[in-house]
Amino acid sequence: MTCAIDFTHDPNLRSWVHSANQADTDFPIQNLPFGIFQAQNRSETPHIGVAIGDQILDLMACQKLGRLEELPEALQAACCASTLNSLMAMGKPASLRLRHHLSQLLRVGQAPDSRILVSMSDAQLLLPATIGDYTDFYASIFHATNVGKLFRPDNPLLPNYKYVPIAYHGRASSIVPTGTSIKRPHGQQKPANRSTPTFAPTQMLDYELEVGCFVGKGNDLGDTISIDQAEDHLFGLCLVNDWSARDIQAWEYQPLGPFLSKSFATTLSPWVVTMEALAPFRGTAFTRSVDDPPILPYLMSSSNQSTGGISIKLEVMLSSAKMRQENIAPLRLSQSNFQHMYWTVAQMLTHHASNGCNLRPGDLFSSGTISGNETGTQGCLLELTQRGTQPITLPTGEVRSFLVEGDEVTLQGYCEEKGYVKIGMGQCQGRIAQT
Amino acid sequence: MTCAIDFTHDPNLRSWVHSANQADTDFPIQNLPFGIFQAQNRSETPHIGVAIGDQILDLMACQKLGRLEELPEALQAACCASTLNSLMAMGKPASLRLRHHLSQLLRVGQAPDSRILVSMSDAQLLLPATIGDYTDFYASIFHATNVGKLFRPDNPLLPNYKYVPIAYHGRASSIVPTGTSIKRPHGQQKPANRSTPTFAPTQMLDYELEVGCFVGKGNDLGDTISIDQAEDHLFGLCLVNDWSARDIQAWEYQPLGPFLSKSFATTLSPWVVTMEALAPFRGTAFTRSVDDPPILPYLMSSSNQSTGGISIKLEVMLSSAKMRQENIAPLRLSQSNFQHMYWTVAQMLTHHASNGCNLRPGDLFSSGTISGNETGTQGCLLELTQRGTQPITLPTGEVRSFLVEGDEVTLQGYCEEKGYVKIGMGQCQGRIAQT
Repeated sequence: MTCAIDFTHDPNLRSWVHSANQADTDFPIQNLPFGIFQAQNRSETPHIGVAIGDQILDLMACQKLGRLEELPEALQAACCASTLNSLMAMGKPASLRLRHHLSQLLRVGQAPDSRILVSMSDAQLLLPATIGDYTDFYASIFHATNVGKLFRPDNPLLPNYKYVPIAYHGRASSIVPTGTSIKRPHGQQKPANRSTPTFAPTQMLDYELEVGCFVGKGNDLGDTISIDQAEDHLFGLCLVNDWSARDIQAWEYQPLGPFLSKSFATTLSPWVVTMEALAPFRGTAFTRSVDDPPILPYLMSSSNQSTGGISIKLEVMLSSAKMRQENIAPLRLSQSNFQHMYWTVAQMLTHHASNGCNLRPGDLFSSGTISGNETGTQGCLLELTQRGTQPITLPTGEVRSFLVEGDEVTLQGYCEEKGYVKIGMGQCQGRIAQT
Repeated sequence: MTCAIDFTHDPNLRSWVHSANQADTDFPIQNLPFGIFQAQNRSETPHIGVAIGDQILDLMACQKLGRLEELPEALQAACCASTLNSLMAMGKPASLRLRHHLSQLLRVGQAPDSRILVSMSDAQLLLPATIGDYTDFYASIFHATNVGKLFRPDNPLLPNYKYVPIAYHGRASSIVPTGTSIKRPHGQQKPANRSTPTFAPTQMLDYELEVGCFVGKGNDLGDTISIDQAEDHLFGLCLVNDWSARDIQAWEYQPLGPFLSKSFATTLSPWVVTMEALAPFRGTAFTRSVDDPPILPYLMSSSNQSTGGISIKLEVMLSSAKMRQENIAPLRLSQSNFQHMYWTVAQMLTHHASNGCNLRPGDLFSSGTISGNETGTQGCLLELTQRGTQPITLPTGEVRSFLVEGDEVTLQGYCEEKGYVKIGMGQCQGRIAQT
């Protein structure tokens, strides 16, 4: 069951936080995404905030001032935690109740109260949750096809692709919040013209445009989650940049999959946009061709087929050190949409738990690189430059096959739908460290 | 630098805990492995114990009774924690100091004190640490060759094997302590005689004999750990059964590696045998053939080549429900030795961090299935039964290609070396749940 559209999505709602009413904000009162922030110049430990315009609603401050007292005590306690895990664990009724409360607290008509706000410019944004396990899917058929073509031109998709939501376990320890600089990793690589590998800095440093999903309510080990129950376990989405070293990946990945080519860093956007906020932007799942095999029953539900898709417009921006020096705006490398996924978020979750694997509140699974099927929609440089053979020219005249020191990659996403206020995902940004 | 052999290994040392002096115990005073236990009939939360004979030395009780007061306060606090993570984080000097203290506390000559002991039969043994990330290597060349032969008879080893310590990220959430029953997972599988997959209970449920290593001191993201520093980051070893569903694995693993075929359960033995305890059992690393390529410099050190190996004798025992009913002793399926690994534990750790991936105290990495190169040394049924084509006959006349309901698999390991007291790893046991 997907979340219903209710009064919190009313396009006429406005907030007493004026910046939340501006047309270009990611965070109008209809959004209300959750994150963890640390206010500068304050001794408080990191805690939960809600993005509203260019401000953060400080939930601990709200609680101290009695602004949450209509909520159940356990929910108030979860609002004062140092991560979102407890709130995520409480499941849908709690998320929805809190959303309704926050929508009322922030709307025009309530007395403005600067004591419960922190300016985003005065805060550091941290990881939203303690991520127990991180899983990365491969759910964009266009990405899988584009990458497959580079290696197997006649047979790009493997036989399992249209049956199995392919995924691999990722590394949780190296997940970092937006703004963390990324160190070019060393690793083994074997160029085609050499007979033996070398250990050296990667020469094929890439980004991957992805959307991640935080697990809300968990399941016990040995229990499964049916496709019709899956939405009850989805807390919300963020943007994910799964940085990749393509030369290391090519050499190491057989037979057990990518390892060190991925585990050096994964960047998250700081705000978790809840499934409740995304309700107006739901749509049909991927439209399969008549030649595609039927979806196996454990992944099939008519409601998931009709509303399992989520339309999120995505883009990747690149700025080089030289571009910033010359005040040239970032270059948009690609535009895509999350609705292009062959598998829905619900199908990914149901598949993940189909063997009884326990998903815990705060666990993260990500979509894999999101690419469309047209030029300019590819979600990574491996595809955009055809493995480096067709470099991109930047406005400065610099060329890029892969990333170089000083390059800054920014992922952005937003949802818009006629009759509803546009909401944004915030930014997922990382810069390749100068060595 | 490997741990030195010191007075704690003296073969003449005896404990006032009489059961620790018996020849067949895994836990003489020379061992002193750490674990987490919950005493039955007590309201205490789980905390740290040290196995000694058939007893557990209760470190919290020791602290309360002032028996740790010679130790630094931070170390005393770590001894009273609910997991081993804090103790692991403190690094080698702390581990060694604690070991020396415990050796003195438990030896003959000290006044016996039943208040600091809990009988193992009155305790439940839990996971030793909060495992942030779990990584599984593929470090047995005989296993890689045996499995490769099943799929590629003429070319069993892939070109990267002798250069790269191959590994994949595993699932941390489904790691369970010894004694947890294992539910047969469902999953997609495509038998060779069918054109499309089905979703059904696995028909090829297997165990994997492995040795796991807990990370002690961690490294920061972006930092590496040189091969000469690696030993400083190793806390200790345990036995690991990485249960596997071979039919699910065969269908899902291309191109990103094993996922649901592994993530339904991984069983650990409860006692972490420290690197200090293992000091007398160190030996040379794997002897490579003259045709093998040289080890790349970042994984090469003369001290690791001369002492990086660890001789641990390993065995896998199987009992079926019928065997237990008829009081037939478990059947030994295989015998192997941890020294058969192509890569040492230090090389696995150094490789893991070579891209700057941060390893945290309590993270676990495991060896992958350990097989020798002779009949009877294969560490899983996939190899032993040649993918089910050569079933094993049990003493009851039952046959096994793969595991069935009621089967109980027990991994055991011990170290023995002339002039030293034999020490054991304890048991890693799991039974396939009746449905």
